Amino acid sequence: MRTPTSSTWERWTRWPLAAAALVFLVAYSLPILDPGMPGRWKALCATVVGVLWLVFIVDFVVRLVAADHRFRWAWRHAFDAAVLLLPALRPLQLVLLVKVLNRSASEGLRGRVGLYVGFGSGIVAYVAALAALQAERYAEGASITSFGDAMWWALTTMTTVGYGDTYPVTTGGRVVGALLMITGVALLGVVTATLASWLVERVTDADDAEDERRSAAEREELRAEIAALRAQVELLVERSTPRT
Amino acid sequence: MRTPTSSTWERWTRWPLAAAALVFLVAYSLPILDPGMPGRWKALCATVVGVLWLVFIVDFVVRLVAADHRFRWAWRHAFDAAVLLLPALRPLQLVLLVKVLNRSASEGLRGRVGLYVGFGSGIVAYVAALAALQAERYAEGASITSFGDAMWWALTTMTTVGYGDTYPVTTGGRVVGALLMITGVALLGVVTATLASWLVERVTDADDAEDERRSAAEREELRAEIAALRAQVELLVERSTPRT
Amino acid sequence: MRTPTSSTWERWTRWPLAAAALVFLVAYSLPILDPGMPGRWKALCATVVGVLWLVFIVDFVVRLVAADHRFRWAWRHAFDAAVLLLPALRPLQLVLLVKVLNRSASEGLRGRVGLYVGFGSGIVAYVAALAALQAERYAEGASITSFGDAMWWALTTMTTVGYGDTYPVTTGGRVVGALLMITGVALLGVVTATLASWLVERVTDADDAEDERRSAAEREELRAEIAALRAQVELLVERSTPRT
Amino acid sequence: MRTPTSSTWERWTRWPLAAAALVFLVAYSLPILDPGMPGRWKALCATVVGVLWLVFIVDFVVRLVAADHRFRWAWRHAFDAAVLLLPALRPLQLVLLVKVLNRSASEGLRGRVGLYVGFGSGIVAYVAALAALQAERYAEGASITSFGDAMWWALTTMTTVGYGDTYPVTTGGRVVGALLMITGVALLGVVTATLASWLVERVTDADDAEDERRSAAEREELRAEIAALRAQVELLVERSTPRT
Repeated sequence: MRTPTSSTWERWTRWPLAAAALVFLVAYSLPILDPGMPGRWKALCATVVGVLWLVFIVDFVVRLVAADHRFRWAWRHAFDAAVLLLPALRPLQLVLLVKVLNRSASEGLRGRVGLYVGFGSGIVAYVAALAALQAERYAEGASITSFGDAMWWALTTMTTVGYGDTYPVTTGGRVVGALLMITGVALLGVVTATLASWLVERVTDADDAEDERRSAAEREELRAEIAALRAQVELLVERSTPRT
Repeated sequence: MRTPTSSTWERWTRWPLAAAALVFLVAYSLPILDPGMPGRWKALCATVVGVLWLVFIVDFVVRLVAADHRFRWAWRHAFDAAVLLLPALRPLQLVLLVKVLNRSASEGLRGRVGLYVGFGSGIVAYVAALAALQAERYAEGASITSFGDAMWWALTTMTTVGYGDTYPVTTGGRVVGALLMITGVALLGVVTATLASWLVERVTDADDAEDERRSAAEREELRAEIAALRAQVELLVERSTPRT
Repeated sequence: MRTPTSSTWERWTRWPLAAAALVFLVAYSLPILDPGMPGRWKALCATVVGVLWLVFIVDFVVRLVAADHRFRWAWRHAFDAAVLLLPALRPLQLVLLVKVLNRSASEGLRGRVGLYVGFGSGIVAYVAALAALQAERYAEGASITSFGDAMWWALTTMTTVGYGDTYPVTTGGRVVGALLMITGVALLGVVTATLASWLVERVTDADDAEDERRSAAEREELRAEIAALRAQVELLVERSTPRT
Repeated sequence: MRTPTSSTWERWTRWPLAAAALVFLVAYSLPILDPGMPGRWKALCATVVGVLWLVFIVDFVVRLVAADHRFRWAWRHAFDAAVLLLPALRPLQLVLLVKVLNRSASEGLRGRVGLYVGFGSGIVAYVAALAALQAERYAEGASITSFGDAMWWALTTMTTVGYGDTYPVTTGGRVVGALLMITGVALLGVVTATLASWLVERVTDADDAEDERRSAAEREELRAEIAALRAQVELLVERSTPRT
């Protein structure tokens, strides 16, 4: 969770890159949402996706070169690299936006975890719905054939409800589903853990305040004891001082 | 979770508003539960719902105007405002009842969390069942066609069991389902977190009691040491006192 | 979780009652598991169930009369009373067995929670399977028609998996299902909470041991300081003692 | 979680046994994954499985004989014994690999828990998929008929999603399913507990650092008080020293 010291490059490119991630997602989504789109629009979207992808690669390389410990940096940013290189993960570029929002906010650890969970889950669900729709739409016996179905499926999967009215039948769809299920388990865990840590802190704080009050009283007593001792020694010193 | 200092207005309107919320829910539910109800009864229910809605709006405005920091107050009560303005959320007025019960009880943080979870889940399940029933009842291919089905569906969704024998097919029903799933994830989280914080506290308390005993013994020893020192200084003072 | 001081009555009846609970469950189960059982065997089972039920009621009344604070005792044992009075809950008598095992074991709070969860879940699943089987067996369109199906359904429900290959269709079966789902949510919560409290304790203990070592060193230093002070005062006392 | 002091035997056999577990799993899997495999290949796989099984038994016996407290050792390794003796559990030999990886790593308690969860879940899902496939493949009305289906089923079960598009219909398959569901509940619990303990520690550490700073200041004050006292007593001692 430690945010590395942002270099000048990162500070200047932060917001433009977030905007680029948003445009990327729109250009990526449109041809999937509307398969009947005219060909030249499709070409435009593909071009935008391609150009922005190059932009993200350039940004990654610049940051890698500028890093102090390049191997450690590369290891820490393995997720970013995977998103850049695997076509299926590309829409996750948008997580960039969450990162930027996150750095602008500063509400303590739990606030940041909450922000990640809220935005992150939404983006993951949307992207998974798109990917599953693309994989399933024309498959035989598919139950995910519209974006509404796909979003509904993503939600029932992520919350581990799993009615079974919509489910993937292709291998691609199932891989997306598997990632979504694992995300769902992690989501449940994060929500619970955040609540538990909040409750534990509240209860512990009350206990600690009680302890603190008691132990402050005891320290006060000890200090009074020593002060009395000192007063008497003071008296001794005074008496032993030869009078002039 | 901090309850703001209740103004005189809040103290006086608390119980009447809770009663109004209960009446509101009954008048809202009846026409949905019995679609074959005679027209004039339906009209009566609609009137009661309308009048009580106005009452809730007046209460909201009065409290907003009376608040010290109106913007902060409005932000904190955004949920209340949403419940007032969106017709679909109106039955959640009943959460008012939980709030009132909650303020009357005073059994520590976990007791209050338990009360919210218990009552709150029940009300949310009931209201979601009503809303889903209204959306689904006459839809083609619907599996939620009676109030019993709707309650069963709400429960299987909220606990994330999701058999798939009943599930919404309309967009309205799916939106209700989505909210219910998210509530279910939160519910699981709250139940677990409350139990975990209880267990952690029990175990930590035992440890702390052990520590406390040991450290009390050490403080006692220190105090005895200082008392002995003081007795000797006392002796010195006495000896240095010129005899008369 | 506080076990009340066991009276002589409780100590003497503990094991016989646990045995009675086991026999009760067997006599209750057999006619449901084998509906084609000859009539006189059914009559025998019904008699055993009836007699043991009277035994449990006598035990409850004796303990109630012997209690110091009868109202508080009744409130604390409301669950026992409900189990006694509602026919549907009767098989839960077997939880008695868990209670007895629990009191015989003494492995700290988490060990007891684990025992409750392990045995308790098993008994609840078995009893729910029996109850659902009785309600569903001859229902139209039922998918729970054998004890194997019923146990499988109870398990898929309790773990919130909910495939939907087996699900209750009668009101009675759905009520059993609802209780089982809520138990399942609680079960998940208890498992997680126990693990979390274990992990928190392990990690906290390591931290505390570190703190303890540092603060022990500091206390030692303070004690040495005071001892030195005392030695010097000792010297003063000696010097001020008039030589004889 | 305490790792017993490894004997020389354990240190030398660790990696060979892990390799044997891997070969065991491959030889066990192949005939299930490709039922149309030529007979002599099947015989080879069966031979490898048999020989390695003997190897594992020899290892178990050697370690049992070498143990200081044989009964306690046997009790602690009951899981290993069950895996050795029950044919259905044999593929779980691979958990050996996790144990070895685990001992090689040394990243604190949570890191080890994470490793167990990650690798362990993967192996359990794979082994359960194999076992269910073997049980279900030729059953009537089965929905798990290929390895892809089996893996998909294992995943939906373990994450408690449970769509119901694939589910076991044989008793053998349902037993595997039951074990997988219980593993899934435990998995959810472990993920959540690990996250919760991490969050609690982070938050508690910040609080403790604050307390530590305050209490260090107080101890410093006390020490200064005693130092001043000592200086004065020093003066008294000096004055009482007879000048020569």
